[in-house]
Amino acid sequence: MSVDSMEAAGLRDTWLTIGGTDLTSRLLVGIEQYTSPSVIRQVLEATGSQVFITTVDPDNNRSSLLLSDIADEIDVDDYLWIGTTSFARSAESAWRTTRILHDSYGITVFKLDVRRADNLPDNPATIEVAAQLRAAGHEVMPFILPDLDTARELQALGCSALRVMAAPVASGAGVPDPAPIHRIINELALPVIVEGGLGSARHVTYAMEMGAAAVLVNTALVQAKEPLLMARAVRHAVEAGRLSYLAGAMPGDEIPS
Amino acid sequence: MSVDSMEAAGLRDTWLTIGGTDLTSRLLVGIEQYTSPSVIRQVLEATGSQVFITTVDPDNNRSSLLLSDIADEIDVDDYLWIGTTSFARSAESAWRTTRILHDSYGITVFKLDVRRADNLPDNPATIEVAAQLRAAGHEVMPFILPDLDTARELQALGCSALRVMAAPVASGAGVPDPAPIHRIINELALPVIVEGGLGSARHVTYAMEMGAAAVLVNTALVQAKEPLLMARAVRHAVEAGRLSYLAGAMPGDEIPS
Repeated sequence: MSVDSMEAAGLRDTWLTIGGTDLTSRLLVGIEQYTSPSVIRQVLEATGSQVFITTVDPDNNRSSLLLSDIADEIDVDDYLWIGTTSFARSAESAWRTTRILHDSYGITVFKLDVRRADNLPDNPATIEVAAQLRAAGHEVMPFILPDLDTARELQALGCSALRVMAAPVASGAGVPDPAPIHRIINELALPVIVEGGLGSARHVTYAMEMGAAAVLVNTALVQAKEPLLMARAVRHAVEAGRLSYLAGAMPGDEIPS
Repeated sequence: MSVDSMEAAGLRDTWLTIGGTDLTSRLLVGIEQYTSPSVIRQVLEATGSQVFITTVDPDNNRSSLLLSDIADEIDVDDYLWIGTTSFARSAESAWRTTRILHDSYGITVFKLDVRRADNLPDNPATIEVAAQLRAAGHEVMPFILPDLDTARELQALGCSALRVMAAPVASGAGVPDPAPIHRIINELALPVIVEGGLGSARHVTYAMEMGAAAVLVNTALVQAKEPLLMARAVRHAVEAGRLSYLAGAMPGDEIPS
């Protein structure tokens, strides 16, 4: 096999089929911090992301851009729509958000976040809402602190993928404690998305070298001086880390586990 | 400017003109550890490297592959030929190596290494040979421990670029102490190549995010389970780090200096 075909095989394979979509892009991006539909379109294009993540805030009316404005700029049918509950601070609020997203937009794939008051994932509450969503027949990608027992429970509930926190959201702190994340990646059958704290291209490369199926970045792009150039940087970083993982590290370079 | 043209401008510009060649590839690879001319050709192609680094060992007859065998496989005229003294353990041995390379192959561009018994760069001996090479009218890229005064002396001698050690050669230890390297990058006008210890894609991304003009990798490829796939990984890592540097890190993500 040529190196071109090895590279293509490594980067273009489907890592998750969800909502009827085969995901090959291993880079997911949050878009709720942008104030311009045009910038959202450019970020989605520059990252090659296949998903469009939308939300509502049922408690504080902290609305994102109007979807009608976004739909003028972006052919939203080109994307897999995912609903997120990232504003939720309780199981009840998260569940209520999913009902609004489902009833308003027909969304059936959920990026489930239940955060504590300190904005870290609330693992027990997340399990609770994941069980409700699964009982309702939805597809769920929950966000958790890297705890192996929680990961196993969510896998047993039939979640589609796990999103595991590297560092607090928006901290840019990278992957300060890789061992528990690496253990979840190695012990679970589910795809693991690393998210939170990935503030630079090197953090993204690292997460993918650990064997993450994908990464989700947000603040790193929004706060870069040139968000679209950083989007391209992070896209290359995903490919670098994925290929490095497939190539097999040199002895001594293994990620701690 | 579109993100495509921003990316192209960031990755295709000339960072060094040396030996009559405009270098745009920011990835240099050592080839003296390979035993097959075919693999050398594939590694050079996969990395997109523009330079062909060759050497002789005047003391131990530790010869690399015969150049005649390599020339059967590779159109060596497509590359800038650089001579290296990486086997040299004294100023005298390094100088003698450059004379053989110059007299045998007409090489006038030197990747100057003078190593101590512990294989770390010998900064004073390197300055001594760099001065001799400059007096002979050659172009020099010396390899040093990250010492700012040494870097300034070599710049004053008219060296073309500096190669600064991140960690011991072949250690795969990454960039354990970035601050002195970052200081050299920021304070010198010369392009700085980071080299030594870059064992994975994330190390390469990091070095480029620091503002390195280029990186040199060797063992990371040779010792990977799939060297050609790692070559592609490292190529993406260079692009990720370069674009991230140009994009400007999010606040708080700055490299220590």
